[in-house]
Amino acid sequence: MEFDTIAAISTPMGEGAIAIVRLSGDEAVEIADKLFVPKGKKRLKDLGSHTIHYGHIQEPKTGEIVEEVMVSLMRGPKTFTREDVVEINCHGGLVSVNRILQLVLKHGARLAEPGEFTKRAFLNGRIDLSQAEAVMDLIRAKTDKAMNVALKQMEGRLSKLIQHLRQDILETLAHVEVNIDYPEYDDVEEMTHRVLLDKATSVKREIERLLQTAGQGKILREGISTVIIGRPNVGKSSLLNSLVHENKAIVTDIPGTTRDVIEEYVNIRGIPLRLVDTAGIRETEDIVERIGVERSRQVLKEADLILLVLNYSEELSDEDLNLFKAIEGMDAIIIVNKTDLPQKIDLNKVKQIAYKQPVITTSLLKEEGVEQLEEAIASLFFEGGLEAGDITYVSNSRHIALLNQALQAIEDAIESVENGIPIDMVQIDMTRAWELLGEIIGDAVHESLIDQLFSQFCLGK
Amino acid sequence: MEFDTIAAISTPMGEGAIAIVRLSGDEAVEIADKLFVPKGKKRLKDLGSHTIHYGHIQEPKTGEIVEEVMVSLMRGPKTFTREDVVEINCHGGLVSVNRILQLVLKHGARLAEPGEFTKRAFLNGRIDLSQAEAVMDLIRAKTDKAMNVALKQMEGRLSKLIQHLRQDILETLAHVEVNIDYPEYDDVEEMTHRVLLDKATSVKREIERLLQTAGQGKILREGISTVIIGRPNVGKSSLLNSLVHENKAIVTDIPGTTRDVIEEYVNIRGIPLRLVDTAGIRETEDIVERIGVERSRQVLKEADLILLVLNYSEELSDEDLNLFKAIEGMDAIIIVNKTDLPQKIDLNKVKQIAYKQPVITTSLLKEEGVEQLEEAIASLFFEGGLEAGDITYVSNSRHIALLNQALQAIEDAIESVENGIPIDMVQIDMTRAWELLGEIIGDAVHESLIDQLFSQFCLGK
Repeated sequence: MEFDTIAAISTPMGEGAIAIVRLSGDEAVEIADKLFVPKGKKRLKDLGSHTIHYGHIQEPKTGEIVEEVMVSLMRGPKTFTREDVVEINCHGGLVSVNRILQLVLKHGARLAEPGEFTKRAFLNGRIDLSQAEAVMDLIRAKTDKAMNVALKQMEGRLSKLIQHLRQDILETLAHVEVNIDYPEYDDVEEMTHRVLLDKATSVKREIERLLQTAGQGKILREGISTVIIGRPNVGKSSLLNSLVHENKAIVTDIPGTTRDVIEEYVNIRGIPLRLVDTAGIRETEDIVERIGVERSRQVLKEADLILLVLNYSEELSDEDLNLFKAIEGMDAIIIVNKTDLPQKIDLNKVKQIAYKQPVITTSLLKEEGVEQLEEAIASLFFEGGLEAGDITYVSNSRHIALLNQALQAIEDAIESVENGIPIDMVQIDMTRAWELLGEIIGDAVHESLIDQLFSQFCLGK
Repeated sequence: MEFDTIAAISTPMGEGAIAIVRLSGDEAVEIADKLFVPKGKKRLKDLGSHTIHYGHIQEPKTGEIVEEVMVSLMRGPKTFTREDVVEINCHGGLVSVNRILQLVLKHGARLAEPGEFTKRAFLNGRIDLSQAEAVMDLIRAKTDKAMNVALKQMEGRLSKLIQHLRQDILETLAHVEVNIDYPEYDDVEEMTHRVLLDKATSVKREIERLLQTAGQGKILREGISTVIIGRPNVGKSSLLNSLVHENKAIVTDIPGTTRDVIEEYVNIRGIPLRLVDTAGIRETEDIVERIGVERSRQVLKEADLILLVLNYSEELSDEDLNLFKAIEGMDAIIIVNKTDLPQKIDLNKVKQIAYKQPVITTSLLKEEGVEQLEEAIASLFFEGGLEAGDITYVSNSRHIALLNQALQAIEDAIESVENGIPIDMVQIDMTRAWELLGEIIGDAVHESLIDQLFSQFCLGK
């Protein structure tokens, strides 16, 4: 495919040692040659691929030197986009890199849309859609393990599994087609049913197996949204601080606009814990007291994990019991804090009420019990330990939704076969499953979906 | 010189398309080879300089793939530091680049101190101290013109001027020395005095000429710190918004720690206007009313520019007159706002009180007069227009201070000659001037000063 030449700043905005303006497209080298005055004599168009050149960026009209740069020249197809790529590597800072970008745009490049470089890698067939999505996941990953999931997806692990499933479905459909074409054989109908049932069942199992990783995959990708609740003065803020300090909070900007939203992530044994409404907790001593049990129930419902803090040195109060009621059946951990003070709480009663929810005793003051708490969190979401190993996780909501729809289509097909519905109806379901799986890797997806997906990327990628 | 191998993240922290871990030192290539699995067969040590290679970063012990990367290989001395430099270019994001940095540190590199790469460029003799300082100015530049000043300094324009001055002084001293050695000639003393006086006066003029650019250079480098004052409801916030919106505020983090301080810069015709205590202005309707004229005088004294806003549709009040008194003799512009309403203010009287301070009428509501205001600001600080041209600005406070001290030494020398003080006393003053100028370019400066200067750099530079 041929596209116009795009350009963008590919490093985060801010003061740093290095900033990069990246160009991609047929005219990337030509445009760079208009602005780049190399220290050597040769122009970029006469230089070899994958080489680095020192020189200056010069305003062609005035001859004014704009920056001292290193230019990386990479000719397609062995590049990120499969097109010719030029990276102008300049001193960091906002003005300098912006000025180079403006010059590049003035001399023939178009400002890239968010994610457009990766989109080209996809459109030019270097990677499929699920791999492209993994590129962004990699950038946004909050822990090593989340990064591993993205890396494997980027390398095409998931794509291969999906392709394999689609191939299976396609072969089954072909087989059925052949049988339909030769109806003169006696046992054709029975054969067809049996083959369909066998194959569909095997595909179904594979999809189910993939979906089993979805819960964990999604958690690794998006983090566990966590709410801390408890009566005033039980140690909610101490818990928050202890989690944040011992694990180094990962504070990140949400891409796109700057500093609009700040979320706080804590890395608990490779699992990103997203502390929801942290500011809220800091400000109001008691979320439940302030907004009432009914409304707090709503807040709690949206969380993946609730940490309920109780006071070891006080008896269980009605308020505590109300909180227990509010989190009934949810993923919660009960933290009985202040073991440094004399015990007044009835721990057996707590454990009884907690039922399946784990109970941990801590003295946040003395920094005791935090490790057990982390262990409880990890095993709550990754029973038997979090295996970085060789599992291919499904982590993307879009993929999970498509897999669920494909599973439904396969189940419909199986049901139809079992109920003796005519084969051509079954074919429709199987084809539907094939199409849905195709959407994961970007086979025949609608252009608007592609646009929408890539628009969530950060600029310059 | 030989140093250990250092490494740091050289791109700003945040989510971006590209992040870079930079290594510099004798073992840079060797360390990178331990971790980098190239797609081609060859190891970095066997590859040519200034080339780019695709591959993966792998944890050597476990064989685990950590990231997909492009590695830039640049062998010294044609590098930023004059040492071997390896840049590991990975997908943006915090986790990935941190992980690579950790691996690099684990396998033999040391975490670079802020500015240590540039420091090596200095210690290895690629650039002098004033050029190194310009690197940081370039990164922090807030406008094109500020960048130009830094760029020229980085290219060694200031260094050449300083070296030229030092050479002059040195030759004069040599000349004097020769004369002292041959006292048998009759007119030696007279000759020596004349030569000294001539040369010293010429050096003095050069230093004075350089110092004349200091005011403007410093403003370009640091911005004009500006305070907006006026009675309630005269349009201070509108003025602020109008300056910010029409000129695109440059909001930057102060390097080092994240988001500790935020300053707002506005680019007025190439001049960075630093809006001091902007939040304060937004919050309190009237700084003068709140903190009293006495204390506000202090705030005003620290500003480079004061914008006093008056109300066109009201008569001059006592408060206005108090404000006028507070800014007497300062660099101020009087803005008579709300020309969209009927005139009640006596403009002639305003101009009379303003004396030499320019008076501008505006209707910020109708967006009228802002251009005239910007012109007034520009011509207040750069009379006759701001020449990007060929002037070599002195912009750094350290340089300005040293130039002033050198000037003093030269003047002392001239005075001594004129008063017939013995030549060896004059020599001391001249030598002192020579040394002071040397400190600007880092000749024989104390190690602790060097450490302190580079510690103000950002990480990875």
